[in-house]
Amino acid sequence: MRIAELSRATGVSTATIKYYIREGLLPSGLLTSSNQARYTEDHVHRLRLIRALLDLGGLTISRIRSIVTALDDPDDTFDPGAMTADRSYTGPLSPLTADPRTVATVRSLTERQGWNAPVDGPEFAVVVELLDILCELGQERFADRLDDYAEAAERVAAVDEEVLRSCDDARSRAESLVVGTVLGDSLLSALRRLARTGRSTPPVPAFVTSGASEAGS
Amino acid sequence: MRIAELSRATGVSTATIKYYIREGLLPSGLLTSSNQARYTEDHVHRLRLIRALLDLGGLTISRIRSIVTALDDPDDTFDPGAMTADRSYTGPLSPLTADPRTVATVRSLTERQGWNAPVDGPEFAVVVELLDILCELGQERFADRLDDYAEAAERVAAVDEEVLRSCDDARSRAESLVVGTVLGDSLLSALRRLARTGRSTPPVPAFVTSGASEAGS
Repeated sequence: MRIAELSRATGVSTATIKYYIREGLLPSGLLTSSNQARYTEDHVHRLRLIRALLDLGGLTISRIRSIVTALDDPDDTFDPGAMTADRSYTGPLSPLTADPRTVATVRSLTERQGWNAPVDGPEFAVVVELLDILCELGQERFADRLDDYAEAAERVAAVDEEVLRSCDDARSRAESLVVGTVLGDSLLSALRRLARTGRSTPPVPAFVTSGASEAGS
Repeated sequence: MRIAELSRATGVSTATIKYYIREGLLPSGLLTSSNQARYTEDHVHRLRLIRALLDLGGLTISRIRSIVTALDDPDDTFDPGAMTADRSYTGPLSPLTADPRTVATVRSLTERQGWNAPVDGPEFAVVVELLDILCELGQERFADRLDDYAEAAERVAAVDEEVLRSCDDARSRAESLVVGTVLGDSLLSALRRLARTGRSTPPVPAFVTSGASEAGS
């Protein structure tokens, strides 16, 4: 298909498509003459992936470039900085600043859950830091319910595992992992808000009940 | 305390503190002379909240302004656009573009879960759209596990409900809701990644395993 058709199929403007090609997010089309190129269903798929990571994951262009480069060659070794976390998380994550009691709390949690996660790993440090921040903000009541959050996370991680196991090859597994991580987080947040609507909770201000209301703004 | 002490207590530079005051995120200090102001523990708390919403929630300054304005007067009625969703979600959310089969899927889900969520509500529309996008990206396998995600979300929503019920007044409830929503989403994502480490999954590229690795970059 030509670029105009690719644009219609995906809802992405031709200027933006050209921008993604220049930025290395999307492969060039096959040149059929000096000023015309042909695009395939692979381009349609890649464009949808880019838009999902951008619009739903809130990832930057350079992050998406690392991800699609990785997807094109999933056996390569990559900088972990290119992962899919959608948080603009820039905390220090130093074990020196973490409260040792929180570290002990998270260590017991991983033991109870049977999670074989290294105490010096980044995943561990993020959980410690989030708990410390919750307490610093006077929200110990959420931190005290860590086990409930962990059970919920365990359930989703088990699904992740099953889905990834069912992938046929490294390439489809890598893409499932990227999409499942980014959209899975969004889906979980959205379902949490859906589960909260219509509950018999005390009235809460409208400005925190929904992640969707922005669509009209 | 003076601004320099406030800066030391929170790790936020004095220039940034002044910027937050100008932007209406932080109340001014009490003027003690023409060029000196005094700050209190309330300022420390508010600054920590701002940093959490900014760094962990990825919210914009104008969104945070709406939130803190709401927190200062939680009985007011607010624009739902000021909610805490951290996704840069700007999708159309039109029922006309949603796949009717997906709408039916989500409707059955809410019935099974006993969620009293309106089908025309924004929370419902976001879930429908995310499922449609997952399928469009060829990740039906995640969409097929919707019930597992929903059970996990239900568990977290039940905790949310209990924590909010235990709040003494509208103001503390509003703040718990904001912090619990934003940091709760982050905590759930972080625990999901922690639960995934050390599992017996097939090897996955390092670039998608963690939300924390960026700290070093």
